[in-house]
Amino acid sequence: MTRVGRVLKAMEEQGLSQMLVTDPVSVFYMTGIQIEPGERFFAMLLKKSGGHVLFLNHLFNIPEGTLFQKVWYSDTDPVMEYVKGHIDGSEILGVDKDLKARFLLPLMEGKEAKNFVNASLAVDFTRGIKDADEQKKMRAASAVNDQAMAKLYELVKEGTTEKEIADRLLGIYLELGAEDFSFPPIVSFGANAADPHHMPDDTVLKPGDAVLFDVGCVKDGYCSDMTRTFYYKEATEKDREIYELVRRANEAAIAKIKPGVPLCELDRTARNIIAEAGYGENFNHRLGHFIGLSEHEFGDVSLANGQTAEPGMIFSIEPGIYLAGETGVRIEDLVLVTPDGVEILNHYTKELTIIDKKKEAP
Amino acid sequence: MTRVGRVLKAMEEQGLSQMLVTDPVSVFYMTGIQIEPGERFFAMLLKKSGGHVLFLNHLFNIPEGTLFQKVWYSDTDPVMEYVKGHIDGSEILGVDKDLKARFLLPLMEGKEAKNFVNASLAVDFTRGIKDADEQKKMRAASAVNDQAMAKLYELVKEGTTEKEIADRLLGIYLELGAEDFSFPPIVSFGANAADPHHMPDDTVLKPGDAVLFDVGCVKDGYCSDMTRTFYYKEATEKDREIYELVRRANEAAIAKIKPGVPLCELDRTARNIIAEAGYGENFNHRLGHFIGLSEHEFGDVSLANGQTAEPGMIFSIEPGIYLAGETGVRIEDLVLVTPDGVEILNHYTKELTIIDKKKEAP
Repeated sequence: MTRVGRVLKAMEEQGLSQMLVTDPVSVFYMTGIQIEPGERFFAMLLKKSGGHVLFLNHLFNIPEGTLFQKVWYSDTDPVMEYVKGHIDGSEILGVDKDLKARFLLPLMEGKEAKNFVNASLAVDFTRGIKDADEQKKMRAASAVNDQAMAKLYELVKEGTTEKEIADRLLGIYLELGAEDFSFPPIVSFGANAADPHHMPDDTVLKPGDAVLFDVGCVKDGYCSDMTRTFYYKEATEKDREIYELVRRANEAAIAKIKPGVPLCELDRTARNIIAEAGYGENFNHRLGHFIGLSEHEFGDVSLANGQTAEPGMIFSIEPGIYLAGETGVRIEDLVLVTPDGVEILNHYTKELTIIDKKKEAP
Repeated sequence: MTRVGRVLKAMEEQGLSQMLVTDPVSVFYMTGIQIEPGERFFAMLLKKSGGHVLFLNHLFNIPEGTLFQKVWYSDTDPVMEYVKGHIDGSEILGVDKDLKARFLLPLMEGKEAKNFVNASLAVDFTRGIKDADEQKKMRAASAVNDQAMAKLYELVKEGTTEKEIADRLLGIYLELGAEDFSFPPIVSFGANAADPHHMPDDTVLKPGDAVLFDVGCVKDGYCSDMTRTFYYKEATEKDREIYELVRRANEAAIAKIKPGVPLCELDRTARNIIAEAGYGENFNHRLGHFIGLSEHEFGDVSLANGQTAEPGMIFSIEPGIYLAGETGVRIEDLVLVTPDGVEILNHYTKELTIIDKKKEAP
C-alpha cells in the first residue's frame, strides 16, 4: 500500500473523510516533494474520495510530473480562501498537530467544516512504522554514526575543548557520506554531562572527566542519534556504579522489546533499575523518542505512552543519570522492532571505556 | 516602557486581558529567556492584571533570577491541564499565530476561555518597531554583512562553483564577529539566478554569468540580509537593462520611505518601474519583509499591506527580475524608518560591477 493509502486508511479508522496536513516532513513523506515553507502556507488536503490537493506558493519549486492537484498562490493572494473552496463543509476536517492558529482559526471562524479535530495520529502513526526502504536508510545512517563515534574517540586528548571536538564532527560526517547533522551535537566534559542538553563550550578536558557524546547525522534524508559516555584517564567507583546502572537500564529495556509490549513498560524497566539504586530523581527525562525523517518524531517511550510496540517502529533507548555539579552518564541506541523482537541499529561498544592513550601506546 | 508593557498596551487596544504567546523568539524578546523547545510546549501567558506565567519543561534551562511566575512540567505531565488552570474562563484568550493545533484545540474543546482569537499582532507589531538597542544591533549585523560581501567578491574566479564559495561564508562571518548565518546563503551563477530561492550547487562559473549573492548573518542575536548581483567578465545589453531597472526600483522605493507612507505604496513604486519596462511578470515576489531577531519577521512590504511606515521599523527592499533559463537580478538592502525618513543599513555599492580580475591587475 502506498504511504498516502496507509494514511487514508488510518483516517478512515478515525471516521474522517478529509484532512489537512501541514508538517512539511509529512507532506514530503507522502509525496516526495521537499519544501521549506518558512512562514508561508504549504499543505496537502487529503480526501477519502481521492483528488488530493497541494497548496503551493509560486516561490516553491516542485519536481515536474507531480501527480497531485496543485493550487498555486502568490504572497498577496488570500490562500485560506482557496483552501476553503476545497473543504467539504458538511464533513469534519482533520488537521495535523502542527497547523498554526493563524491558519486554523479563520477556518473555524468561517465554520468551513462540520467540526475540526486534531487527527495527526493518522499521519504520525503511519510515519512511526518504517517500511523496508526506510529501515534500510535508518540502518545506513546509524552505521555512519557508529563510525563517527570511533573518530570522536580519537579526538579526545589532553587540553582539548568541547567546542574543538564538536567543530570537527560535521567534516567527519560529510567524509563518511552523510549530508548533515540530525541535531546540533552534544559534547559534554565532567560536570557539564549533568545537563542532558548541554551545548559544547570552551570547557577544557581534564583527567577524571566523563566525556559524553550525543550525536547524529542525516543520511539519505534519515536521521541517526546515539550517545556514548567515556571517562578520561580515570573513573571513580561512583562513576563506575552509575555507568553500569545506566548500561543495565539500557540493555534491560532493549531486551524486553518485541511486538505487543507496551512502550511504557520499556521506560518502567529502565527506570526501576535506576530508581532501585537510589537515582530515580537523577533520571529526569523519558526513556526514548521515535525518529526517522525527523530527529524527534511523534511517539515517545515514556510512562505516559500505553501504545504497544509494532514491527517497523524505530525509537531511541536512552536512560541517563545526572548528578548536578558533578557528572552525568547517558547511553543511547536506536532500535528497530522486528516481527520476532528487536534489532539494535547501533553497534559501538557500551563497555565502560577509559580513554588513556599514553597507556594504550606506550 | 518595557517590551512586556508595550505588548500589554497593544493587547488592551485589542480589548484583551490575557494572551498565550508560544513563538520562542517572542518569549525571548519579552523575557530574555532563550529556549529551543522542539516539540515540547513552551509558552508565556500574559495577563493584564500582571502575574504573567511561563510554562517550562524541566529539560529547559533558564537563567537564575527570572522574575516571572514559572510552572514546570515533565514529559509525562498533562501540561495543558496546568495551562487551563491559569486561564480566566470568563474572558477571551488571545493566542499568537504560531500556537499549534495540538495545544489550541484542547483549550477550545474544553471551552477554557470565552472565545479564542489570533491576537498575534499585539506581539508582532511591537516586535516590528525596534528600540534603540535593537537598532544598534541591526546596524552592526548589516555592517558585518557589507564586509562579508566584499570578501565574497574576492572569491569569484574562473572555475569556482557556487558551493565552494558558499562553503567559505560561515568562516568569513565568524571571523568578522558574527555568530551564525541568518539563513542558508544563496549563491547563484547564470541561469540559476532566475530562481529566487536557488540553493548553491556544483555549477561552475563561466564568463557572462550573473553572480548573485543573497546572504545574511546573525550578530548579537540580530539578523542581516542583503543581495547583490555582479557579472563575471562581461554583461550583455539586456543584462545592463534589467540590472538598471532593478537598481532604479530599489532606489525609488527607498526614496519614498518616511513615517506615514503605506508599505504597499513602496511595493507599487518598485513594481511599476519594472512593469512599465515589460518585466512585471518577472518580479514574482513581494518587495520586502520585516527582520530582526528572526530573519523573516511578521510584516511585509507588499501590495497587500496597507500598514504605514513608522519610526523604528526595519525591513528589506529587494526587487528582482527573473528570466527563467537565462538570468536573474536582485538588489536588496535593509532599511530603518527614521522620524525624518530612512536610514539604509547596507552600504555596499549598487553600481553595476563586472568582475574581471585579469583586467584589474594586469
